[in-house]
Amino acid sequence: MVDAIRRLVVRGAPALGVCAAYGVVVGLDEHPSDDVAATRATLERVAAEIGGARPTAVNLSAAASRVAASARAGTTPAEVRALALAEADAIRAEDEEACRRIGEHGRTELAAARRIMTHCNTGRLATAGLGTALGVVYAKALAGEPVEVVASETRPLLQGARLTAWELVDAGIPVTVVADPAAGAALATRRVDAVVVGCDRVALNGDTANKIGTYGLAVLARAHDVPFYVAGPLSSFDPSARSAADIVIEQRPADEVRTAGGAVVAPDVDVWNPAFDVTPGELITAFVTDAGVLRPPYDATIPAALEGAGAARA
Amino acid sequence: MVDAIRRLVVRGAPALGVCAAYGVVVGLDEHPSDDVAATRATLERVAAEIGGARPTAVNLSAAASRVAASARAGTTPAEVRALALAEADAIRAEDEEACRRIGEHGRTELAAARRIMTHCNTGRLATAGLGTALGVVYAKALAGEPVEVVASETRPLLQGARLTAWELVDAGIPVTVVADPAAGAALATRRVDAVVVGCDRVALNGDTANKIGTYGLAVLARAHDVPFYVAGPLSSFDPSARSAADIVIEQRPADEVRTAGGAVVAPDVDVWNPAFDVTPGELITAFVTDAGVLRPPYDATIPAALEGAGAARA
Repeated sequence: MVDAIRRLVVRGAPALGVCAAYGVVVGLDEHPSDDVAATRATLERVAAEIGGARPTAVNLSAAASRVAASARAGTTPAEVRALALAEADAIRAEDEEACRRIGEHGRTELAAARRIMTHCNTGRLATAGLGTALGVVYAKALAGEPVEVVASETRPLLQGARLTAWELVDAGIPVTVVADPAAGAALATRRVDAVVVGCDRVALNGDTANKIGTYGLAVLARAHDVPFYVAGPLSSFDPSARSAADIVIEQRPADEVRTAGGAVVAPDVDVWNPAFDVTPGELITAFVTDAGVLRPPYDATIPAALEGAGAARA
Repeated sequence: MVDAIRRLVVRGAPALGVCAAYGVVVGLDEHPSDDVAATRATLERVAAEIGGARPTAVNLSAAASRVAASARAGTTPAEVRALALAEADAIRAEDEEACRRIGEHGRTELAAARRIMTHCNTGRLATAGLGTALGVVYAKALAGEPVEVVASETRPLLQGARLTAWELVDAGIPVTVVADPAAGAALATRRVDAVVVGCDRVALNGDTANKIGTYGLAVLARAHDVPFYVAGPLSSFDPSARSAADIVIEQRPADEVRTAGGAVVAPDVDVWNPAFDVTPGELITAFVTDAGVLRPPYDATIPAALEGAGAARA
């Protein structure tokens, strides 16, 4: 389970919590003992190991700790295991119910949003239920409301292109995949009503750790007056983190960026692939040209430079 | 040549201009005639075809038109060809000189910038000289000034990971490749002194069409008070474009996004690969949770929601 979590065979904060919980039970089964003290020691060791497999998603360590705290009250090895399994079952059921509630709350909050942009994968492959950000999309679709998704591919591991696109095509919900650099142009030109993402750990002041790229999307959304929502269960909120300073950001292996593997988006998924975007002059500090550095106001300095170049050639 | 341009065997606005210019000469050689009228007709047809191979970089059509305008004065087929070749040579020489000047102007302008972030590829593989944005980097390095580069990989075709990384390692200039979604976190956490990019077409008001993702970088740079420079020759400025509304953005084949091919970053290039980033609460419109929608001020609403959940469970 630790290996599966580290290699992202399982990923998504809520799914990590559920898998960590059941992983503690699996750990107990891998190290059986007739002695309750030895079983409790195994419980603590396995919970610590699974809970520490990755650092950022709070669900992982919180679920492993919760199972250990519940099961250590068992007075026999069998009772320890039974309590651990019951707690894991509870965590899974709570996550499924949390997804349902997130979907309903989001459906109400985002009633006017038809085209939703998202990042990474936050649906059935990331939770025990319908999902967090994608749970809102599913809730809208299940209620018969029009909804479509712009999914960023989410390099380096392409969870948007591979997982979100798969989920939505499977559910019959329209989805368009864009390369990550197209996010700004998509917000500028494609009438996105809202950006909705998931979360790995939320601090008490709202600072939110989530898949790399979330922050850039939030800045871009703000620049376009597009509302930016974070959808997630309270189990992803960390009461011990007061701000981002209390959140550890995982560094992943460089090989994830060094490589990009084969086909990633299914042939039946729409793709939007502009080669260029337009940066308004007002965002540009200066142009460094062969005729020198041109500064604002550009509608004066650029024509003057071009006239100067024409005059020089003539 | 048209095929090479369309498939991006040749790319980079200045290099496209130079190749378009020589491509007109190649076109004349492919359709030889003893009749000057027929040669002139070939000249116009070939120049139009090459100039229209891709729509966004102004250098392409401008260089093809310029060669045609110069060569159509020839009174014999041989003279038409000689004039075309002379004009192509002039365009190449001018581009090389423009790169040199851009490098020097940029070196002066960016004297205090040590860590430069860039996008796509704008160096020796994109121009007839040392480059535009990378030309500034080369000029700093050649002058013995400290300089290092953060290069975004530039999906879908990964020109940053493949070309910029190769150029800089070859030149002995430190470079770190980041996946495109890491750009925001790089600006927030890695002390970037300036963002410098190239340009495919600049309008008279400064609106700049460049590789998809440039716009997002500009918004992010502004959000971090990092200066954002566009480096390019005046040949990339379009006197007929008053603003972005006059620039055609090329749509590329969806298969570029559908696939990602094999190894992309050389093993000796540094990579920075955080799995997550942090979005400040102030950029988040609301949290959609299983306990409802939480709105600012988060340092009040999040603790209250967590206390409420704790009370409900107790």
